[in-house]
Amino acid sequence: MDRYGGIEAGGTKFVCMVGSGPESISAEVRFPTTNPAETLSRTIAFFREQQQMAPLAAVGVGCFGPLDLDPASPTFGAITTTPKPGWANTHLVRALEQALHVPVVIDTDVNAAAYGEYVWGAARGVSQFIYNTIGTGIGAGAIIQGEPIHGLLHPETGHIRIPHDHGVDPFPGDCPYHGDCFEGLASGNALRRRWGVPAEKLADDHPGWELEAHYLALALVNQICMVSPQRVVLGGGVMKHASLFPRVRARVQEYLNRYIDRPEIQGEIEDYIVPPALGDRSGCLGAIALAQHKERDWRLEIKE
Amino acid sequence: MDRYGGIEAGGTKFVCMVGSGPESISAEVRFPTTNPAETLSRTIAFFREQQQMAPLAAVGVGCFGPLDLDPASPTFGAITTTPKPGWANTHLVRALEQALHVPVVIDTDVNAAAYGEYVWGAARGVSQFIYNTIGTGIGAGAIIQGEPIHGLLHPETGHIRIPHDHGVDPFPGDCPYHGDCFEGLASGNALRRRWGVPAEKLADDHPGWELEAHYLALALVNQICMVSPQRVVLGGGVMKHASLFPRVRARVQEYLNRYIDRPEIQGEIEDYIVPPALGDRSGCLGAIALAQHKERDWRLEIKE
Repeated sequence: MDRYGGIEAGGTKFVCMVGSGPESISAEVRFPTTNPAETLSRTIAFFREQQQMAPLAAVGVGCFGPLDLDPASPTFGAITTTPKPGWANTHLVRALEQALHVPVVIDTDVNAAAYGEYVWGAARGVSQFIYNTIGTGIGAGAIIQGEPIHGLLHPETGHIRIPHDHGVDPFPGDCPYHGDCFEGLASGNALRRRWGVPAEKLADDHPGWELEAHYLALALVNQICMVSPQRVVLGGGVMKHASLFPRVRARVQEYLNRYIDRPEIQGEIEDYIVPPALGDRSGCLGAIALAQHKERDWRLEIKE
Repeated sequence: MDRYGGIEAGGTKFVCMVGSGPESISAEVRFPTTNPAETLSRTIAFFREQQQMAPLAAVGVGCFGPLDLDPASPTFGAITTTPKPGWANTHLVRALEQALHVPVVIDTDVNAAAYGEYVWGAARGVSQFIYNTIGTGIGAGAIIQGEPIHGLLHPETGHIRIPHDHGVDPFPGDCPYHGDCFEGLASGNALRRRWGVPAEKLADDHPGWELEAHYLALALVNQICMVSPQRVVLGGGVMKHASLFPRVRARVQEYLNRYIDRPEIQGEIEDYIVPPALGDRSGCLGAIALAQHKERDWRLEIKE
């Protein structure tokens, strides 16, 4: 079976794997994201060592953004305007292709994770769904007709505007661009700044969880009304708090108020709003799945 | 050239056309939407008369919803839970196929209009965009990778939740399901109820237009962040007020606050947020385009 490389290029850590699916990962390494030169050279060293054992067919990358994903652009495959020091205008795809001499596929971290859940995880069998990660920040990937969507740029769902009742929640939001957008109100960073402790330290009966469920449900209602996903996956560190899933599901039903009259929402909503099945490996496995998917396309193109 | 039928099945009127594109409509009829029996029999009579002159290859329908668009469902092609008296559970596709003996394609009114704008109108050349109609109600269709999207049901973008400052705008919203959702705040009906006069009677300098632009811009920001469309089309009666387009464009730029760093938004936003090019024919022409598109697929399937 062909071996693929997968990279989850995150803002705090890089995860690199070699394999062809969740049951066949033969090597894995994790290290902190420092500056681009050091981080890329560790990445390249890992895959070169792997290539000495056996060739890699392709490498997939799920990367923090914003990214240039326009194949016609001269800066295709680069990280563009990130505020992360040193990383703006990093030509990730070019650097990896030049060093490893294999095709490299790139997508956003959340589109890669969504694709991993689509191929091997919680979204098998549906062709249209949304994957959200509620962590330090908030991001979402979307699969439509079996493909991650891009468009003008790529989804930036963390920055949608949702209702914010300043009387109930005087916290102004902490998004540097938009203040009280979805991410500004509901990310792990927002929780920490609003309550003065990290999310994982908030007591189970803290009113912050009910408020969090409220904001998550508003954002999910918007996703359901706008994209009509067949399933919604909610991952990320904040979702590890056990009470959130039942609270979010109940509020989504309440806020939709039977308008979307489908059994998936009115009935078995436990199967509609779900955690990821690949845990914290969604992103890196998704990068491998993207590499496999694209490599098959390239082979077909060559044959034609 | 093959002749196709197109039907815009609206809540207040039906439009039926025969032709193969905007420049080749050979017959057209419009009549009010009354009860299903009468309305469908007028529709069928028009197309039968047309069939006596020359055959129709297929008929497309863009219909008010919600619709059952799941091809595996026994009620595929039916209007489902509409509050419109008499129309719930109307099997539109079945009735037309049985009477006209041609393949019938159905989609939502807004997906059909979006598809018309994609094939012949304001969205030619882009593969991912959103079409909004801001009329008595609010609806949106979405084309992604060149196809109208459906998913669990179909988009119901009028019902997303957006910020509502009750201090600035004490109107509670008029959506019977959600109160102050996007449609409840910004539809033609909402304007009429908030200000006591129909939208077309509001003076040019009435503060209602600035408020309307604010709500439209919030909804567009959510669409842009969630779906990353390459263009946004804004149609419908309310958009005929000339001052709305420049106001909405300026506010979208302001609310995105340079976060989506693309020239389409920062620069030539006049080419990004645009009116429909087919005017009030988008829906019916789009139904014809859908019929052509699907009929080609069927012919390919038969050949295989």
